[in-house]
Amino acid sequence: MDNRIIIAIDAMGGENSPGKNIEGISIFLKKNKKKKDFFFNLYGDELLIKKELNKHKISGSFYKIFHSSTVVSDEETPLTAIKNSKDSSMWNAINSQIELNSNITLSAGNTGVLFVVSRMLLKTIESVSKPALAGLWPNKKKMNVVLDLGANVDCDDNNLVDFSEMGAALYKALFPEDFPKVALLNIGSEEIKGTEILKKAHAKLKEISKYGSFQFDGFIEGNKIYNGESNVIVTDGFTGNIALKTAEGTVKFITDTLKASLTKTLLSKFSIIFSYFALKKFKSKLDPRKFNGAIFLGLKGPVVKSHGSTDAIGFYHSIDLCYRIVKGNLMDKIKKNLSHGRNKK
Amino acid sequence: MDNRIIIAIDAMGGENSPGKNIEGISIFLKKNKKKKDFFFNLYGDELLIKKELNKHKISGSFYKIFHSSTVVSDEETPLTAIKNSKDSSMWNAINSQIELNSNITLSAGNTGVLFVVSRMLLKTIESVSKPALAGLWPNKKKMNVVLDLGANVDCDDNNLVDFSEMGAALYKALFPEDFPKVALLNIGSEEIKGTEILKKAHAKLKEISKYGSFQFDGFIEGNKIYNGESNVIVTDGFTGNIALKTAEGTVKFITDTLKASLTKTLLSKFSIIFSYFALKKFKSKLDPRKFNGAIFLGLKGPVVKSHGSTDAIGFYHSIDLCYRIVKGNLMDKIKKNLSHGRNKK
Repeated sequence: MDNRIIIAIDAMGGENSPGKNIEGISIFLKKNKKKKDFFFNLYGDELLIKKELNKHKISGSFYKIFHSSTVVSDEETPLTAIKNSKDSSMWNAINSQIELNSNITLSAGNTGVLFVVSRMLLKTIESVSKPALAGLWPNKKKMNVVLDLGANVDCDDNNLVDFSEMGAALYKALFPEDFPKVALLNIGSEEIKGTEILKKAHAKLKEISKYGSFQFDGFIEGNKIYNGESNVIVTDGFTGNIALKTAEGTVKFITDTLKASLTKTLLSKFSIIFSYFALKKFKSKLDPRKFNGAIFLGLKGPVVKSHGSTDAIGFYHSIDLCYRIVKGNLMDKIKKNLSHGRNKK
Repeated sequence: MDNRIIIAIDAMGGENSPGKNIEGISIFLKKNKKKKDFFFNLYGDELLIKKELNKHKISGSFYKIFHSSTVVSDEETPLTAIKNSKDSSMWNAINSQIELNSNITLSAGNTGVLFVVSRMLLKTIESVSKPALAGLWPNKKKMNVVLDLGANVDCDDNNLVDFSEMGAALYKALFPEDFPKVALLNIGSEEIKGTEILKKAHAKLKEISKYGSFQFDGFIEGNKIYNGESNVIVTDGFTGNIALKTAEGTVKFITDTLKASLTKTLLSKFSIIFSYFALKKFKSKLDPRKFNGAIFLGLKGPVVKSHGSTDAIGFYHSIDLCYRIVKGNLMDKIKKNLSHGRNKK
């Protein structure tokens, strides 16, 4: 039996594929020289993929190519995806969790199609009301898991409870040394604040947290996401998407303003040389490529979506995320957490 | 008849009052030496206020003190506010719009109480479904007006239409040289995205914008708030509050990270000297005190809420905001804009 972690990669999804996808694998191999516990099932145009693999001198013992003749385009909509994307590199990479031995699927392709096809092929876990999209978000101490980032516009209290249980499982899988601390995103921290749905979810999570899978910290405001007290931030897909994109826009606005300030005067141009290393560290800490990879939670198999426009380093971080998810037994942890909530909904 | 802009100030609200409040007036007077078109009605402890006025040598021609013996505490809740806050400095400052000649009220006191008492004393404009809380938000080109920032957790499409009309009026009052461009905050820019409420509001705003009070830019995503294309960003109070606080948290996280990077190494410590002026400019551009002041829109008189914890400079910016709101004829502009929307709801 194969005990390796088998990652199915849609090598054709996203910009500059399969170049960045294969280079991402090459970076992963360099960073994990001592490990032998992984293997890649690669989906896409065999000739193109081979060319890239040769360029990076990647040993044949780490991969198998499965030729797929079509690619899901960025213009494809979720409505027609099931019909049009069959046998594409994305479809086959997902399907390999069912028909082959893949443990997880990674794609940088069309998000809507990836979600719809994953849901159809892998199916939603029986006790999960709605699957969710989770992402990593930096905080002062380490990292948050935040969900839902946009899969579900309307959510009820049971959805939020499911998200909490699955988010806590993801956090534990990724950071086994820490204990998941769940908080619901709200406009105030007092129990009386917010919508009726949030109040109901609050009451249920208070009960469920007694099973010991996670600590429940109650409500958290948007400005507290970064303080690292709670590490699993739960919200509906509408709010989560707005919060994520507002944060992204804020980071861009500030770094652009900073850059403009620093390059404006001759004196400050000199200062850049001096602060080069400090700013490099600053940039590296906030490098969005480190947080690249959103995880579909609630399906019978895990699927990771990389940003389409990321580069090889960003794609490497998604591969690393896939590796850690399987290594951390995400699926078992989700099942265990969900069993606690089942009687409380 | 008095043609001056008369600003009623709750001199006792917020931290370090009345010190910072009166110092804020002093800064305003220094910045507006040539103007004589304003006057302050000051509410609070007469002796304390006089002491501060003397300290800053403020001429008696600019103010009148109305002694108010009580102050609304931070612990007071909106539920008991009507009973407990009568004759407080806040209450009297609001009431002076009805019983005296004040054109606008400014307070740095308890937000919930300020909202409830303002609503009760000043009354909601007949054609407005719900009053909203608007704020200023920096963008690449200048400034956005964003609303609702938290007054209404649940909003329907008519509320969002009202917010758009009032927000456009506020933008025009503050920036008479610009044309208001309204956008609805959503998780995508396509017309099919988002909740049913947003889709309905989209259709109505498309129609109403034909009257020419504002341009309607459709949906906008969180990361586009800063690009300055649209300048009136409309959303429900839950989403607006989360977006605002997430942005605040992001700014703090980044500037803290930057500070830590810059002070870590000896080399980078030197660099601070060199980049001192550049960073000063950067800090000044993002100084939250410049955006201090949230505006209650939809009542028959305008009310501005200053941050309780701001200092004299922040309070000065709120005074300046009040002056510009009255100078820009906000109330007339709101009435005009609302008349366009009335038949379309």
